[in-house]
Amino acid sequence: MTTASRPTIAVLGGAGQEGRGLAARWARAGYPIIIGSRDPVRGESAAAELAALTKGSVSAASNAEAAEQGQIVVLTVPYRAQQALALEVAPYLSGKVVIDVTVPLVPPKVARVQLPEGGSAVDALQKALGDDVRVVAAFQNVSAHQLLELDHEVDCDVLVFGDDDAARQTVCELAEAIGLVAYHAGPLANAAAAEALTSVLIWMNKRYKSPLGAGIRISGLPAQGV
Amino acid sequence: MTTASRPTIAVLGGAGQEGRGLAARWARAGYPIIIGSRDPVRGESAAAELAALTKGSVSAASNAEAAEQGQIVVLTVPYRAQQALALEVAPYLSGKVVIDVTVPLVPPKVARVQLPEGGSAVDALQKALGDDVRVVAAFQNVSAHQLLELDHEVDCDVLVFGDDDAARQTVCELAEAIGLVAYHAGPLANAAAAEALTSVLIWMNKRYKSPLGAGIRISGLPAQGV
Repeated sequence: MTTASRPTIAVLGGAGQEGRGLAARWARAGYPIIIGSRDPVRGESAAAELAALTKGSVSAASNAEAAEQGQIVVLTVPYRAQQALALEVAPYLSGKVVIDVTVPLVPPKVARVQLPEGGSAVDALQKALGDDVRVVAAFQNVSAHQLLELDHEVDCDVLVFGDDDAARQTVCELAEAIGLVAYHAGPLANAAAAEALTSVLIWMNKRYKSPLGAGIRISGLPAQGV
Repeated sequence: MTTASRPTIAVLGGAGQEGRGLAARWARAGYPIIIGSRDPVRGESAAAELAALTKGSVSAASNAEAAEQGQIVVLTVPYRAQQALALEVAPYLSGKVVIDVTVPLVPPKVARVQLPEGGSAVDALQKALGDDVRVVAAFQNVSAHQLLELDHEVDCDVLVFGDDDAARQTVCELAEAIGLVAYHAGPLANAAAAEALTSVLIWMNKRYKSPLGAGIRISGLPAQGV
């Protein structure tokens, strides 16, 4: 991927763990990053930390401003905030690829699969936003902890779900740009598998006392190009 | 595992692909197998074929007889037949570990995740059978094709779900006895993840034209003993 084709990525909720992990990796790979946050102090602090850590271009803004300026928008907020935030910034999402990383965890039993009625949480989001916004679900099973260990190669694959093939391809390339093997994994409805897996991996981390966080790899397929 | 501790395994629906694959591997590992089938001709034929293939002990019977004689019972019938069959043989399941391999696929869109309302299909089964039957969900994502290629090492891990830890452990050991790495993956409700993954893997097999069938491996955990 050439320098000219590194779009600006707005990471909404980017001051949180998962958002920061992805932001760090993309920033280090040369993508301009805007951290969207409801809390300007928290957002600025995260952006400064990430810029220092990665020597990349990382700034902060409100979620709405970040969504407006980002060419690609990533949602990494807790489930309870997902729909409201997406609808709040919806006017700025038109025509864009929106990567949803949220998982429908229902505290306190986050190690137990509790999917919403009707299947996948992100499928509901796509319906709410309409076809003009190309929602892609990915990275739900990539451990934030591993992403933040920048010297550590992330030991898992990424499943990419979306109803638009080109949008999925864009996200596969974003994953590959940070060293992850990514696979097209089907329509948005299929994201229920990754959403459910998150609780399974949380359960397994506790059971097996995993320091870095369990992940999944896909076996049995021809090697995907990075 | 010593010879004395190889329980008889009844594989209901064992004349089908997934059932035969598992039956073949266990028979080769020295477990006595009973193929349960609604169709005596089909059952006998499958049993004879497997016995010849594996040099193991493989016989056939009706589903009820197989459930009665088996110390462990495995359900490998299509989703539409799962509940009815389990309830039919329920009297013979009392006190046993029952391994459910069925996946709630909804033809024709089997490559699309369509989980039943309320979450996991096997969780519903456990409720129907009651606590005296220890239902464990496993093997949903192990390609039948790979299982049947006996000279081929199966290239995937097994996630084992159940509400009873000892029952899960029994099934982990059964997986390990046929060379698979198995993990405790949580309560039965968590099986929704594996059920959903089956459709994802089917979709990916088509997309990536996988000859042997995609599977999953768990990364990031300490190695599990086989």
